[in-house]
Amino acid sequence: DLVHDILAFLSPKKLAGRKVLVTAGPTFEAIDTVRGITNLSSGKMGYAVAEAALAQGADVTLVSGPTAIPPPPRAHFVYVTSAAEMFNAVKAHVAGIDIFFSVAAVADYTPVEASNRKLKKSNTPLELHLKPTEDILAYVAALPNAPFCVGFAAESENLADYAQAKRAKKKIPMIVANLVQHAVGREENEVTIYDDAGAHPVARA
Amino acid sequence: DLVHDILAFLSPKKLAGRKVLVTAGPTFEAIDTVRGITNLSSGKMGYAVAEAALAQGADVTLVSGPTAIPPPPRAHFVYVTSAAEMFNAVKAHVAGIDIFFSVAAVADYTPVEASNRKLKKSNTPLELHLKPTEDILAYVAALPNAPFCVGFAAESENLADYAQAKRAKKKIPMIVANLVQHAVGREENEVTIYDDAGAHPVARA
Repeated sequence: DLVHDILAFLSPKKLAGRKVLVTAGPTFEAIDTVRGITNLSSGKMGYAVAEAALAQGADVTLVSGPTAIPPPPRAHFVYVTSAAEMFNAVKAHVAGIDIFFSVAAVADYTPVEASNRKLKKSNTPLELHLKPTEDILAYVAALPNAPFCVGFAAESENLADYAQAKRAKKKIPMIVANLVQHAVGREENEVTIYDDAGAHPVARA
Repeated sequence: DLVHDILAFLSPKKLAGRKVLVTAGPTFEAIDTVRGITNLSSGKMGYAVAEAALAQGADVTLVSGPTAIPPPPRAHFVYVTSAAEMFNAVKAHVAGIDIFFSVAAVADYTPVEASNRKLKKSNTPLELHLKPTEDILAYVAALPNAPFCVGFAAESENLADYAQAKRAKKKIPMIVANLVQHAVGREENEVTIYDDAGAHPVARA
């Protein structure tokens, strides 16, 4: 299937015996005690990558935001909620990792301040102040002895431009890109892998 | 259990043969094609109310936001995403309803404008403009020949004050209130029912 095609594309990087770190799912950025900003990522792609790496004999750590998917039994599983928690979990587990699959749809923005009580409704408009989150993938790619980093990009338009721009900005060797109208909440994706050699379409599963 | 205790409290309103409308779950208010504002409601309470009403022989319509719970097989099931969709679904199904259980954690605020493409990250703060949503329960309670309306309130503090204020503001006869730290994402709740006669604690299940 698609995930195996992606991993097959990585075949020079054999996974057996390798230490693999995968992030998956959305994050949830608290606005108050009950509300928050999230996204439509189901986590399926990241969990499938983790399962496929396990099947190839890798030692897999899966850092996951909130999903409805049971953790793979043989993975080291770390459950997180927010982008900040995911960043901390990745920092805590990245030492010695050979390959980092950054599949999670990490929030780009988070509320400047979360309220520790439930905000009451009023009849007036509300301004929510947001700040950018840390770029986890760029952080890992910039580490001394960084693992081989594979990014995942969901875009709604200009797939090739955005994916290659993201790959350059984060300074990563490889990015797996798909159009969001084909991907979010669906089992099957139509994706293209970009690396230094160019674009490599992966057939739909 | 708790839900049966709640329905038992309603025993003067026998449910057999009655037409019951239940809302459940969170709503998801789109910010762009992938991001949105939601809340931590699991939908369990609303689905449990629907199941219990079905078990008592009611004709149940369940309008649900996004949850991981399978629809009750014998309910008329309407799936919605946003607060506006939930409002429209309730308006479409409220005619002839005897009892309305407003259990959904409907978003109080929604983005003034959702982007139809994925917003790109930048390194600068972002202001998100929000507007209040329609009050579905107050709308139903104000209808001519309104059904008997039961509200549900999740609060993080001042339970009695907020619940009674909400009951008065929405002009509904009964509200089931619980503290959010005891409730969100958990199976068991500790709740108090408020009506004209005062407060009626319901034992924890």
